[in-house]
Amino acid sequence: MTRLDERGERWMVGRIQRLLGDRTVGDDTAYIPWGRDYLLATTDATTIRTHYPWHSPEAWGWYVAAVNLSDIACKGGEPLGLLLSLLLPRETEVATVEGIMRGAKRCCARYGTKVAGGDTKEGREICLVGAAFGRVGRAEFMPRGGARPGDILALTGTLGAAASGYIALQEGVTGPGLRGEERRLLRPYPRVFEGRAAARTRAVHACTDLSDGLLASVHQLCLPSGVGAEVMWEAVPVSAALRRRGQATEEWALGFGGDFELLMAVPPGRFDKVRRAVRGKGTRLTAIGSVRRERKVELVGRGWRRPLKYGGWEHFRGGG
Amino acid sequence: MTRLDERGERWMVGRIQRLLGDRTVGDDTAYIPWGRDYLLATTDATTIRTHYPWHSPEAWGWYVAAVNLSDIACKGGEPLGLLLSLLLPRETEVATVEGIMRGAKRCCARYGTKVAGGDTKEGREICLVGAAFGRVGRAEFMPRGGARPGDILALTGTLGAAASGYIALQEGVTGPGLRGEERRLLRPYPRVFEGRAAARTRAVHACTDLSDGLLASVHQLCLPSGVGAEVMWEAVPVSAALRRRGQATEEWALGFGGDFELLMAVPPGRFDKVRRAVRGKGTRLTAIGSVRRERKVELVGRGWRRPLKYGGWEHFRGGG
Repeated sequence: MTRLDERGERWMVGRIQRLLGDRTVGDDTAYIPWGRDYLLATTDATTIRTHYPWHSPEAWGWYVAAVNLSDIACKGGEPLGLLLSLLLPRETEVATVEGIMRGAKRCCARYGTKVAGGDTKEGREICLVGAAFGRVGRAEFMPRGGARPGDILALTGTLGAAASGYIALQEGVTGPGLRGEERRLLRPYPRVFEGRAAARTRAVHACTDLSDGLLASVHQLCLPSGVGAEVMWEAVPVSAALRRRGQATEEWALGFGGDFELLMAVPPGRFDKVRRAVRGKGTRLTAIGSVRRERKVELVGRGWRRPLKYGGWEHFRGGG
Repeated sequence: MTRLDERGERWMVGRIQRLLGDRTVGDDTAYIPWGRDYLLATTDATTIRTHYPWHSPEAWGWYVAAVNLSDIACKGGEPLGLLLSLLLPRETEVATVEGIMRGAKRCCARYGTKVAGGDTKEGREICLVGAAFGRVGRAEFMPRGGARPGDILALTGTLGAAASGYIALQEGVTGPGLRGEERRLLRPYPRVFEGRAAARTRAVHACTDLSDGLLASVHQLCLPSGVGAEVMWEAVPVSAALRRRGQATEEWALGFGGDFELLMAVPPGRFDKVRRAVRGKGTRLTAIGSVRRERKVELVGRGWRRPLKYGGWEHFRGGG
């Protein structure tokens, strides 16, 4: 008998895809034809222990809403609602449950949507399971696996704010003590408006979000597209907070997750159009590399290049 | 500080509704306008410990799919997909995960839909959280709170098969040893086809499913409708299995859940039309009582009548 911790999450997801006969299961978000649109549907489960021991209940609620909305954002969708299931030990304080719901409500409201339903059941530990759904025109839909050789790899915002917040916590700062963009570790802002704006240009070949960090996301874009990529280290926009800490390293900027930016593959001739659309939402879109035929991912600096393996955090096994 | 086990699930759901400013949250299913249709979305969380210690992994998967599809069925919806989040201890056998997915896949396939996505995360105990979504024309939608005085209360199928299976288990029969309709305890059949057929008549004022037993469901239909009801004990169709066991009591037939039938409120003049539509799917629809203005629920027999309190199983507190 094989156990999960011998194989890890990615192996298990592959097995489930084969069992279901559907390679798109395990993608960020399901998309189901509905007239001229797609219905988008996604779910993300989080346990307090693994995901955010430092958060307040309100930050837990915000976080689970945000990660689910981010999966709608990376498809270019308009969010239509969030379902929130809570597993709670029976000794949980009522105030904790109310904090969670308040956080989820606030995050949804910021993105023009709401908590539409949910379920509460008894469990051994606090688990928050969100499911978000949304809507996108079929012609605007941004798949994960559509990147083509020659496309520009483009990134919204900067990388490393969440990593910087994490370093601060390791150094003894408490959750409420986080300042500036480091607060995004606890309160990420999914790129819902930017995703919609980019999708409306109909110029984006592929898109995914950065929940597991840039390196994982580049692989998650390239694998289903059947392509490889070069990422230019000097071009990656690193957050000011991480630079101030003197920690603008590959490990922290590219390997650590939690920033919830969007990574897109865009044909060069249409990059300016997409960049303008995203800038219209107050966010910079930066070219950080390119897609190529050869199926490997490399990080390129001044005078060096190095293969990047598909590593990063993995459930049931831990870091890798 | 107040704890959940001092208040119970229903009290907490009421608090959450007020906090969200939305009385429809806590209903079976959210409904979101989409052109001339509603998008239906629902989530149900289950832990192995509370819900089905006797099941096989495949039966767990079937069960979580079934309870979610039942929430689509009671709105008259066509199911469009199921998301399935699994929380799993890291020592879980791979075969267990595959069994769960296979069961969910089979249940979805039976109802013309599929597992469209999901998430797997590490947790302290096995939890299965499903989210189902579906579609229904606005004119066909069956709300929970639309019952009107004078409506017939109508029930699909029979009550007590799951209760009878539960009694068998208490008497030492193992899960795989259950026979005939008692197997429905482990493998409920949500009334998806019957719900669609009833909805298409556009004659149903209100509908809910029976996950928590008939008594709870009558209250769940009456409360948001602002009405009361009489249930005729002699008219309730009790399953042959429960009768054979000599346990066709109110407690087992009306108080125990797990049958996943549909309870509808239908105006008398249109009852025959709805009954024919449901019979077209091979299922009997039985008139078991009536809706009335006075806001209390009573059980009526030959020569007696008794108020029925809103009791039944409640999470965080247990039975009551």
